[in-house]
Amino acid sequence: MSKWYTSCGNQSDTVISTRIRLARNIAGVPFPSRMTAQQRKEVNLAVKEAIICDENRAKRFKYIEMDTLPDITVMSMVERHIISPEFAKVRDNKALILSDDESVSIMLCEEDHIRIQVMRAGLSLDEAYAEADRIDDILGEKLNYAFNERLGYLTECPTNLGTGLRASLMLHLPALEMSGAVNRLASTVSKIGLTIRGTYGEGTKASASMYQLSNQVTLGISEKAAIENLKSIAAQAMAQEKSARENLDQFALEDNAYRALGTLKFARILSGDEFMKLISRVRLGVATGVVEGIPLEKIEELIIDAGAATLQANAGEPLDATERDRLRAKIIRERL
Amino acid sequence: MSKWYTSCGNQSDTVISTRIRLARNIAGVPFPSRMTAQQRKEVNLAVKEAIICDENRAKRFKYIEMDTLPDITVMSMVERHIISPEFAKVRDNKALILSDDESVSIMLCEEDHIRIQVMRAGLSLDEAYAEADRIDDILGEKLNYAFNERLGYLTECPTNLGTGLRASLMLHLPALEMSGAVNRLASTVSKIGLTIRGTYGEGTKASASMYQLSNQVTLGISEKAAIENLKSIAAQAMAQEKSARENLDQFALEDNAYRALGTLKFARILSGDEFMKLISRVRLGVATGVVEGIPLEKIEELIIDAGAATLQANAGEPLDATERDRLRAKIIRERL
Repeated sequence: MSKWYTSCGNQSDTVISTRIRLARNIAGVPFPSRMTAQQRKEVNLAVKEAIICDENRAKRFKYIEMDTLPDITVMSMVERHIISPEFAKVRDNKALILSDDESVSIMLCEEDHIRIQVMRAGLSLDEAYAEADRIDDILGEKLNYAFNERLGYLTECPTNLGTGLRASLMLHLPALEMSGAVNRLASTVSKIGLTIRGTYGEGTKASASMYQLSNQVTLGISEKAAIENLKSIAAQAMAQEKSARENLDQFALEDNAYRALGTLKFARILSGDEFMKLISRVRLGVATGVVEGIPLEKIEELIIDAGAATLQANAGEPLDATERDRLRAKIIRERL
Repeated sequence: MSKWYTSCGNQSDTVISTRIRLARNIAGVPFPSRMTAQQRKEVNLAVKEAIICDENRAKRFKYIEMDTLPDITVMSMVERHIISPEFAKVRDNKALILSDDESVSIMLCEEDHIRIQVMRAGLSLDEAYAEADRIDDILGEKLNYAFNERLGYLTECPTNLGTGLRASLMLHLPALEMSGAVNRLASTVSKIGLTIRGTYGEGTKASASMYQLSNQVTLGISEKAAIENLKSIAAQAMAQEKSARENLDQFALEDNAYRALGTLKFARILSGDEFMKLISRVRLGVATGVVEGIPLEKIEELIIDAGAATLQANAGEPLDATERDRLRAKIIRERL
């Protein structure tokens, strides 16, 4: 089964991926921070049975007990945004339900009992939301969700109360970053209930000019309205980025993209930071059409496979920093 | 006829080329700085007739009146070391005799009446000297050289008195430059009658770690002894450079060489300075065997063809700096 990120998405010149997350809890059970081991096991199994209830779904979804996985596999899942960094830290009695293409992951006993996450390549909010909603319905039929008429879905953290929905877009905004406009954009969107953050969520730095745009408000707003909001702001950000790209010196853009490509194709050692800087310049070149012959989805695949943990997970052995940086260069060289 | 620098020379990992120059003057005629136009013409023709006196030599040697050449062709000749920068400046009544492979050039009415120059790829002092000596004999048979029993050949500048010989080796010393040892080497050789200078002779900077090692003393020493001196010092410099190369971090050397190659293969604009820095790193990689598939003589050819004036001479039109840097990148990209 090929992974979700190997397909080509809509508006992929500026939108790398779409992510929908729904937070749900089961009525009458304490939030994970105060659950006993026994309660965790019971919730995990209840969700497992609710979703993996026929042969088709048993083929599509895997139930994974997190404490059975090697550290490196878990860190690779964080890199691939399958699980949150918090979920990876303490893994006793935590479980994950993961689809074969890795587009659907359900974290059990993370901050909430259930975190449904759906990912899609490119701009795909409606499709991703429809899929998350379908899974939510499947689970909701069998499980008694903690729900309050006035507040909506109850969640551990009040910022998720209501819809429990977080819709995010991973945007590639190199031209807005260069011009400094990305900071202006961040302060604008915060006024209308959205946020722009670094690659791995709250408090992380933007790597390779990749920014996560997501909704903040979950209370007093419908899921559809939140998504429409995000869509219209994303459209503005995308238009701004495209116009900023057109204003760049096109020859310098081409030179920069090709130099980055030349280094990626020939370097014998590449740190993660340098790799991300270079691949971002190549991505801009491909997205603007000055670099030909490299599909954008190949770039996403390389970014995933060049991750420090994913490199080691694929190599099947732990590597020190130098070994990792050499292996990264080797893989990039062979695949580009 | 392919040019002399397209062949592979001895010890080409450290020695780029060999140059022998003999300064000669004709008795009873003032030195060029005090010659009349008429006297210049007479000397030029006398030398022309002395050398181009049969069909074979007429095929091999071209007689060129310097004031008939476009500026850009002349500047390209300076870049290719066929003529000196001084010879290019004022060109009235100056002439050049040039062999078809450009390995032999005879400047007429430069600082002296006759400057015979022979170039060879790699380390080839004996062969280059033999060829210069043969041409000297041919001319000496027909012309009455200014010669003094006590002083030897008389020259305009006293630093050339005696043998009139300057033997030079163009060395590639990147490892000695990195370690700083090249400065020590320069002060050592100056004590024994040799000098190390930049790429285009006295007072010029070393470009791409290329250094010209040549004899200084011409008085009271035979031609052969001067050449043997140079040979033995060159052997020491070459050995030092090789040992310094072995002491470099071989992996970093490989990474550096390949990154430089990647940039050369992909950049869309390359200044002359950047090109020389990059090609020097590639040359070191090729010379040490970490970069395969590029012959050293191809590198010399690229260095020549990437020269600012040679680029324009080959393009057949004058180019501004940006056009030149783009054309340089294009040519390097196509040829590497």
